[in-house]
Amino acid sequence: MTTEEQKRNVLYAQSGGVTAVINASACGVIETARKHKETFGRIFAGENGILGVLDERLIDTSFESADAIASLRHTPGGAFGSCRFKMGSPKQKPALYQRLLEVFKAHNIGYFFYNGGGDSQDTTNQLAKYCEQNNFPLTSIGIPKTIDNDLPITDSCPGFGSVAKYVATSVMEASLDVASMAKTSTKVFILEVMGRHAGWIAASGALAARKPGDPPHIILFPERPFLKSEFTKKVKECVNLYGFCSIVVSEGIRNADGNFVSEQGIKDAFGHAQLGGVAPNIANIIRSELGFKYHWAVADYLQRSARHIASKTDVEHAYEVGAAAVSYAKTGKNAIMPIIIRTQDNPYKWAIGETPLNKVANIEKTLPPNFISKDGFGVTEECMQYLRPLIGGEDYPPYVDGVPNYVSLKKQFEPRKLTDDFAIE
Amino acid sequence: MTTEEQKRNVLYAQSGGVTAVINASACGVIETARKHKETFGRIFAGENGILGVLDERLIDTSFESADAIASLRHTPGGAFGSCRFKMGSPKQKPALYQRLLEVFKAHNIGYFFYNGGGDSQDTTNQLAKYCEQNNFPLTSIGIPKTIDNDLPITDSCPGFGSVAKYVATSVMEASLDVASMAKTSTKVFILEVMGRHAGWIAASGALAARKPGDPPHIILFPERPFLKSEFTKKVKECVNLYGFCSIVVSEGIRNADGNFVSEQGIKDAFGHAQLGGVAPNIANIIRSELGFKYHWAVADYLQRSARHIASKTDVEHAYEVGAAAVSYAKTGKNAIMPIIIRTQDNPYKWAIGETPLNKVANIEKTLPPNFISKDGFGVTEECMQYLRPLIGGEDYPPYVDGVPNYVSLKKQFEPRKLTDDFAIE
Repeated sequence: MTTEEQKRNVLYAQSGGVTAVINASACGVIETARKHKETFGRIFAGENGILGVLDERLIDTSFESADAIASLRHTPGGAFGSCRFKMGSPKQKPALYQRLLEVFKAHNIGYFFYNGGGDSQDTTNQLAKYCEQNNFPLTSIGIPKTIDNDLPITDSCPGFGSVAKYVATSVMEASLDVASMAKTSTKVFILEVMGRHAGWIAASGALAARKPGDPPHIILFPERPFLKSEFTKKVKECVNLYGFCSIVVSEGIRNADGNFVSEQGIKDAFGHAQLGGVAPNIANIIRSELGFKYHWAVADYLQRSARHIASKTDVEHAYEVGAAAVSYAKTGKNAIMPIIIRTQDNPYKWAIGETPLNKVANIEKTLPPNFISKDGFGVTEECMQYLRPLIGGEDYPPYVDGVPNYVSLKKQFEPRKLTDDFAIE
Repeated sequence: MTTEEQKRNVLYAQSGGVTAVINASACGVIETARKHKETFGRIFAGENGILGVLDERLIDTSFESADAIASLRHTPGGAFGSCRFKMGSPKQKPALYQRLLEVFKAHNIGYFFYNGGGDSQDTTNQLAKYCEQNNFPLTSIGIPKTIDNDLPITDSCPGFGSVAKYVATSVMEASLDVASMAKTSTKVFILEVMGRHAGWIAASGALAARKPGDPPHIILFPERPFLKSEFTKKVKECVNLYGFCSIVVSEGIRNADGNFVSEQGIKDAFGHAQLGGVAPNIANIIRSELGFKYHWAVADYLQRSARHIASKTDVEHAYEVGAAAVSYAKTGKNAIMPIIIRTQDNPYKWAIGETPLNKVANIEKTLPPNFISKDGFGVTEECMQYLRPLIGGEDYPPYVDGVPNYVSLKKQFEPRKLTDDFAIE
């Protein structure tokens, strides 16, 4: 038995763009840590991710009831706040890592769980090494999260399955609408989806189709250059064949010269271009080259926050990687990330495994070539087999007065222990 | 008892923009007519609405199984096809009405059910008068449908409640996302919704709020001129107060000079401007005037086809107005439209009533002034009380392989009986 003084505290933080299920991972972390009071001390969460840690804004989760924590499982967004903030390496930003160490020491943090994508897993890894070098015993574990599904090693990323289900369902529904109107009205429908460099989300639109010829008729991937003449030829063919053409386009498609088809010219903290608005550009091409009546939609945040149509499989993945992170920490593992292992395709079976963080940090997994159809406008059966299980099952939130009953946390802050303020440059 | 020869046939047609629940009305019509074989003969549906009637493209619904018809209740879009086509009056377009009469005579149509908005109810009414004048005994009954909720007399319009539920849920979800990211990323989120002249859909975003200060913080209505300086002042206030600002904007907002804030310059068959893209315009104002990081979404067809998150109340309304139309026809009523009557607010109770078609044709019901808050950027409690019951209850479709199991009909055509083709000018 560990005595009360020896027990070290837990710190959980969310990072990067939030998802419909990142809070399910938080739920998995907190519920599991609460079950093991013999190992884990108090459970803190950083306000707005790592920024709240640097700023010593630690939320004391003990003020949150068991019900509230359970409700995180069905609440989208980042309940503790997230941030886009590039930590870099200890060599690049020594002051940041030194500050983290001070905060960890001040609050007796023994376990750090960082819930994010590739950039964040790099930070989790750097932090593990930094603490080891500084003789501070920290267990630093990453928890995968990204709607982009672009982390390596893990079969899929929590957050993706729910976006995929939203996109597949939306494409199916909007296409039924267009099909009914095409005789006299809209002939081309364009849905813009997220996915900066990887076409996983765009590909998931294909799950709307049950048989050949079903919409979506065209998918535009960031992995393929956008060639206007081939595209307009294909649109024309579809309108002739099916009476209408339903298109899914990734925000990240580029022309053959490498420029984004839509580029707003704004960059985020990671230096990534902030995209949005490729759909109206595609619509303009349809209008000027083909003259068809069109409509376009940009799903934007709606797709990644749509907890109301989350994939049950995705919610379970998200919860279990959170729970597993804590279990691994309990057994003394460090600098690892729980991963999802597919053990069987149909019926889908999966298990939780682990990977060293240095294998996932800053590596981006794009669509493999054999997942994209020969003409570049669709997916292969192999891709469908991979994607299908990830959107499996429904997991509806409770509703009150016709809208989902999402939880708001109390967010009680732990008193600060460091006397100096920390200015984040 | 009516003998087989005396029994006259039914013709149902869908008109205008389709909705998540227009097929529930079709289901109500067909299931009810099938139950009364003593009165109703065969049940036809026009392919692509009135166009299929003019073109003698009549779908024989007897080929559709009871299961398929029941599945219409949970299938969005227009299962028989719809159209945007202005019939005008018999005086303006005598050839069209003459042709309808010929088709009705050829196929022994005794009952015409026209499922649409204000324009279509005008047609239903004109047709009733025309047939009476031409001594053709037709029962012509309108069935209300419009996401815009802009029909008079009826308390609400089938189609609207489901869009309202989609918009309220989407605003709630996307706002949770933005709230978690606002510290370092997006501070302003803009959701563009439909509603050309009436702000009902935009207003429904307000249902996302549970308490004062909850998003959406700003709603822009077509009933109010868009005043840039007042708007940007309000956005700034919200970002200061809440850390972010969530905005719902109707596609139909206009500047003080009466011009649409976004106008693509395309008009549909009714002469209505085809809108879309006001969100990026608002985003540009945010960028240039305030410099906040923003994101925007355009829900477009996704909102009106989102059967996966339909309002149970709306589905019931849609079914019952369809069923009532047939019941009214059975009792000999003509040139009427079933309406929804609210008998109690909380708990919500409702009944079906009727109105003469001439009272609803071509009248547009916009938001009453007492439903919009004093500053013009929100709704009043009266408006919330009106809206809330309309999104009440969930009515999920069945799922297969992670996507909704929507029905596709066989659409077997009745052989044509008229020898001449009809060219629609």
